[in-house]
Amino acid sequence: MTRSYFRKSVERTGAYTPGYQPKVADYVKLNTNENPYPPSDRVLEAIRAEVARLGRYPDPTSDTVRQEVAKLFDVRLNNVLVGNGSDELLSMVVRATVEPGGTVTFPSPTYTLYEVLVALEGGTSRPVKFPKDWSLPEGLFGNDSAVTFLSNPNSPTGTFVAPEEVLRLAKSLKGVLVIDEAYVDFAETHCMALARECENVLVLRTLSKSYSLAGLRLGFAVGAAELIAGLMKVKDSYNVGRLAIAGGAAALRDQPHMLANVKKVKATRARLARELDGLGFSTLPSQANFVLTRPPGGLSARDYYEKLWEKLILVRWLDEPWVRQFVRVTVGADDEIDRLLAATREIVRKK
Amino acid sequence: MTRSYFRKSVERTGAYTPGYQPKVADYVKLNTNENPYPPSDRVLEAIRAEVARLGRYPDPTSDTVRQEVAKLFDVRLNNVLVGNGSDELLSMVVRATVEPGGTVTFPSPTYTLYEVLVALEGGTSRPVKFPKDWSLPEGLFGNDSAVTFLSNPNSPTGTFVAPEEVLRLAKSLKGVLVIDEAYVDFAETHCMALARECENVLVLRTLSKSYSLAGLRLGFAVGAAELIAGLMKVKDSYNVGRLAIAGGAAALRDQPHMLANVKKVKATRARLARELDGLGFSTLPSQANFVLTRPPGGLSARDYYEKLWEKLILVRWLDEPWVRQFVRVTVGADDEIDRLLAATREIVRKK
Repeated sequence: MTRSYFRKSVERTGAYTPGYQPKVADYVKLNTNENPYPPSDRVLEAIRAEVARLGRYPDPTSDTVRQEVAKLFDVRLNNVLVGNGSDELLSMVVRATVEPGGTVTFPSPTYTLYEVLVALEGGTSRPVKFPKDWSLPEGLFGNDSAVTFLSNPNSPTGTFVAPEEVLRLAKSLKGVLVIDEAYVDFAETHCMALARECENVLVLRTLSKSYSLAGLRLGFAVGAAELIAGLMKVKDSYNVGRLAIAGGAAALRDQPHMLANVKKVKATRARLARELDGLGFSTLPSQANFVLTRPPGGLSARDYYEKLWEKLILVRWLDEPWVRQFVRVTVGADDEIDRLLAATREIVRKK
Repeated sequence: MTRSYFRKSVERTGAYTPGYQPKVADYVKLNTNENPYPPSDRVLEAIRAEVARLGRYPDPTSDTVRQEVAKLFDVRLNNVLVGNGSDELLSMVVRATVEPGGTVTFPSPTYTLYEVLVALEGGTSRPVKFPKDWSLPEGLFGNDSAVTFLSNPNSPTGTFVAPEEVLRLAKSLKGVLVIDEAYVDFAETHCMALARECENVLVLRTLSKSYSLAGLRLGFAVGAAELIAGLMKVKDSYNVGRLAIAGGAAALRDQPHMLANVKKVKATRARLARELDGLGFSTLPSQANFVLTRPPGGLSARDYYEKLWEKLILVRWLDEPWVRQFVRVTVGADDEIDRLLAATREIVRKK
């Protein structure tokens, strides 16, 4: 190309790299935190019924989804924004609030997409390192950024910060606090009350994990009506398709199905952590559907990751500060975790 | 709210208003250019088969769709970008190329979303008025904007600019020329060759109109590999869901189905224009699936629009310079157009 057609901020930024999505099916796939159990049958029924209406544009504001969210969390329709996955909602927040040259603060390590979104808009990220006990870093409190992101439970660590602490953080901030609760259904509690109580808090959820709908693309944000109205301005007119609206609303309606799957995942998570630690690994306490674990001495995380790959078991290894001694393992079905553990025993024995 | 959390550019910008999407079904809906005929049965089959895989993330780059596009237009995979509707692609172009304070040029009147997207990013729109014959305004040539948008066929006029003229425009520009071909399957020719030949041309297509899939949300862009790679950086990781990928690829594979529906729409379009003109309307020559028409003297466009609304017939009236004397009528099925024409005869008789 003879010249650049792109913004400087875009030229400078490397794209976010999502976890590897293999195009052949014979892997044990424990690398992108999908749910091993199928979604509710009601989702499939709702999608099949909606297929007949695909010729018409969807509802621009996905109101059938908003109604379910409003019921679940005791808020009104205008407190809810529905997105094409919670990634779209994160992008909308940054585009709507971060001036060129503005700053965004978040604890680190965390979801690496945050800093990519900030860089694309010409903003500056201010990561603040988590302390050793994975509580909120004091450096977050009272910061003057347009946005503070908090992934809670945090990815990739799985650790959780109590709602009282998050409330203290929200009250200390001038800007918006985005609590990214992608994994919260696997935790013991959540911060949705803050979205109702604080004018500067936005709570994000996704149907990709606990509702087993990563392939559908549906997320939602809950917050003050004024926050939601501002974000609506940067929303694409028809950002969520008919099948995602119909399927997502049906999934939200079937809470028992989601809760039963979450219960199974949590039981497997406890077993996985226990068995790994029994083999000499150090596993962080997780409230998500994955664990972050450090292999025993003499086996680097990268080696462990590569040896699993050779055995067609995919986990996630991030070559980033603070986490490169760890691998992140999605809590799959029991038979998948059995295969991971068998492979791990073999790798540890041979090291 | 005690303070604003939003960027100045966002505070200043009013949201784009999509056409009204009624939540009850008894309207004749001729206001948002949907296709009255159903999508290919293969789409429905592909979606039903894909539903079983919804628990897993989709392919981040929608390669099965890219493969179909590559075959159809004789390009390579890396010349194709797939979006959550072509609206997402438009947003990505602006976010990737327009610096804060930068400019975007387009002929006017046109799709009003362009100026909303530019305003949101803190850019400045430079509309250039179409001449009376709806050819390319000389003022577009050689402009120094980051992006020039050309809706071709143009919305809301339905008029078309010949590819030779568009090529002359592309060669005169320093920035990117985006040729928005949302309606081009209803035209006699198209500009896809320019996407292969010019490093600064991006051609956008959607499956919402000719493929009868407005509710699915799928669009694609074709252009130089470097242009596509830059846009990929601002793309959400999983911007298109599994059902849209599967259904969209199936739709692209069934060209005969799409072409047969287009043929019916074009025949109805000719009849609609002829009958409206017979009642004293002035209808612009359209190469899209809608017509822009001016009611006869003594009947304002707004009055006509409102009287149709009372009869449960929805068309589009835009309160914008140059077009507020017109209404835009989607070419529906023959029985819908019969109802519109019967209502129109009654309104004209009573005026």
